[in-house]
Amino acid sequence: MPSSRTSPSFPDSEYWDRIEKTRAAMEAEGLDAILITDPSNMSWISGYDGWTFYVHQAVLLSMEGEPVWWGRGIDAAGAMRTVFMEEDNIFGYADDYVQNPDKHPMEDLAKLVDAYGHGTQRVGIEMDNYYFSASAYKTLLKCLPKADFQDCTGLVNWQRTIKSEFELIYMRRAADIVTAMHEKIRNFAEPGMPKHKLVAEIYHTGISGVGGHWGDYPAIVPMAPSGLDATAPHLTWDDTPLRTGEATFFEIAGAHRRYHCPQSRTLFLGKPPQKYLDAEMAVDDATEAALEQARPGNRCEDIANAFNAALARHGFIKDNRCGYAIGLSYPPDWGERTMSFRAGDRTELLPGMTFHFMPALWLDDGGIETTEPILITENGHDRLCDTPGGLVVKA
Amino acid sequence: MPSSRTSPSFPDSEYWDRIEKTRAAMEAEGLDAILITDPSNMSWISGYDGWTFYVHQAVLLSMEGEPVWWGRGIDAAGAMRTVFMEEDNIFGYADDYVQNPDKHPMEDLAKLVDAYGHGTQRVGIEMDNYYFSASAYKTLLKCLPKADFQDCTGLVNWQRTIKSEFELIYMRRAADIVTAMHEKIRNFAEPGMPKHKLVAEIYHTGISGVGGHWGDYPAIVPMAPSGLDATAPHLTWDDTPLRTGEATFFEIAGAHRRYHCPQSRTLFLGKPPQKYLDAEMAVDDATEAALEQARPGNRCEDIANAFNAALARHGFIKDNRCGYAIGLSYPPDWGERTMSFRAGDRTELLPGMTFHFMPALWLDDGGIETTEPILITENGHDRLCDTPGGLVVKA
Repeated sequence: MPSSRTSPSFPDSEYWDRIEKTRAAMEAEGLDAILITDPSNMSWISGYDGWTFYVHQAVLLSMEGEPVWWGRGIDAAGAMRTVFMEEDNIFGYADDYVQNPDKHPMEDLAKLVDAYGHGTQRVGIEMDNYYFSASAYKTLLKCLPKADFQDCTGLVNWQRTIKSEFELIYMRRAADIVTAMHEKIRNFAEPGMPKHKLVAEIYHTGISGVGGHWGDYPAIVPMAPSGLDATAPHLTWDDTPLRTGEATFFEIAGAHRRYHCPQSRTLFLGKPPQKYLDAEMAVDDATEAALEQARPGNRCEDIANAFNAALARHGFIKDNRCGYAIGLSYPPDWGERTMSFRAGDRTELLPGMTFHFMPALWLDDGGIETTEPILITENGHDRLCDTPGGLVVKA
Repeated sequence: MPSSRTSPSFPDSEYWDRIEKTRAAMEAEGLDAILITDPSNMSWISGYDGWTFYVHQAVLLSMEGEPVWWGRGIDAAGAMRTVFMEEDNIFGYADDYVQNPDKHPMEDLAKLVDAYGHGTQRVGIEMDNYYFSASAYKTLLKCLPKADFQDCTGLVNWQRTIKSEFELIYMRRAADIVTAMHEKIRNFAEPGMPKHKLVAEIYHTGISGVGGHWGDYPAIVPMAPSGLDATAPHLTWDDTPLRTGEATFFEIAGAHRRYHCPQSRTLFLGKPPQKYLDAEMAVDDATEAALEQARPGNRCEDIANAFNAALARHGFIKDNRCGYAIGLSYPPDWGERTMSFRAGDRTELLPGMTFHFMPALWLDDGGIETTEPILITENGHDRLCDTPGGLVVKA
């Protein structure tokens, strides 16, 4: 009996294409099977979608047949509602394994891996992945002493870099959503408004969606620090009022069917001091220089090098990466954890790749983020959003 | 120089109380130091607050002195803005450690642990914790071969079970917020409304807050499945319209300063079939029987046993836990991962403990969730919310 999906995001053929690509990568690494525990990889390969990654779960992919979903017993019903596989390939474990120091769910997964004939084979595991804990690893080693475990962190992620037509449709819808969210900020923000009131509007716009396309939850909540708090890149919000003379950056994403389009803008209430205008010009110039390099055949580091050189001409330095791959994701990160725009990343840019170009500058008394999500095309790149550039200045 | 907190959630003395309790537990385990990597434990012991748990980070706690914050270089500014410790106790690592397969941030943490004199000591690590990956563990073992690493999963979590007066103030604010969120659902939902439009309103109400108290982001997004999707407990939402004759449950939480109050209700549009009314009565009766046991001196399992016995008299069976501890949290889970209401959990109930009593029933064609967040008091318990009980029926 097949699972009972009511609104699948992709035709089954797309999952089989993904599996074929992944198996080629597995073969190149000499792997007989992999245990996929990154929720975004699980979803990409099987369609699984649920907020269940706070308990141990996995997809087992062998060199033949359908993937196998494994998770908490009560979540097997959610797998039935979302994955493309047959019901026979969905396995749930007993509830007393949940957050119980006396037993570990991976004991159950080990039995399944063994039953599928991989107990003495070469099995890939995502060693540096959220949710695959040190204890999960130790338990697998103990329960399957004859298996040859290999680190396959990133193996599935790397198959996801070039987006399909369906994926690009979803990302463009997410782009429309984040564009609307920034428009909301421009129109709604005013001096004295408590920050959380503005964030409530941002959420409302993001989930309401655009053009008849619903908003999904982004893998990161809005980051929206003001003033000195904006010297830190990853603070969220409280009820402090927006103040005249202060900058606030909004690092937010639109999301649709788990696909993300992040974009940041910086709001300044009142007249920006010269330092902010200088930083704005530096970021604008460096962005133009960097995006000139965003075309097939160039490498990730070409973008970073062009960006840093242009920034340096304006007297600014940025010592962290200026972009990363984006697409399907689950908390806590909307990046794909593969390519980064930084020195040393020599990955070749190819049509269909999608990135968040992230030329953020954190100054000693605030921060500026004016970022662009982009798609590498046959001849260059497209900006996914048409949000106006530069500082958002309101009186 | 002390860090520059603008709006601390607690006086420094409260952090020192927490540290003292934690050190007593460390001493009982013979630990010289612990590496805290659970974001909620990091926040509870140091005040740290930021959406940065997608990169490796930790708090090092020894038997004397202040805790030490360690994380990505650009996030040290966020630590400066939120922790109670002096600037000297904040350490950032270089950005090229981020998501780079050639080097691992734990190499840097190992140096810090060694510099603090713990390289040959007995050091606790949270082995079964989100965000402390298998690779993090292996790297620590490799870089500190003379350290005696011990599993301290849950050690800090268990110190958090009894809430302070400040914590209870924040949880009651969160309770007011989730009460308002359910009121919004009751008033706003109607047949034909696309689900995401309702979720946008739920978010707006939750972040807007109640009584002048702002809403923080909950550690889990709204779960809101309808009809057959509600046979699965952890699905989120899409744009499917709410339908007459169908049940939808809303498992949501109010949040304030990272403290959570979750509560679920089930909406039925139209006239509920007898099966739902029977399930509602069974849950109501079993809830009364269970909460009679919610008082100091009883044990967690007493609540589960009373609940299951009453449910069985109505012909229903629930094979998963019916509650868990709640409080401070970060994604992906708003539970504290300590106590569960289930057979075998013999933890004694004490005044100041807070739980989400979660008597959810998932049927073969839908689900019912009517849940209660509670506080154990000197003589019994308080319900934190006054949301009306039972099914929410709308024509």
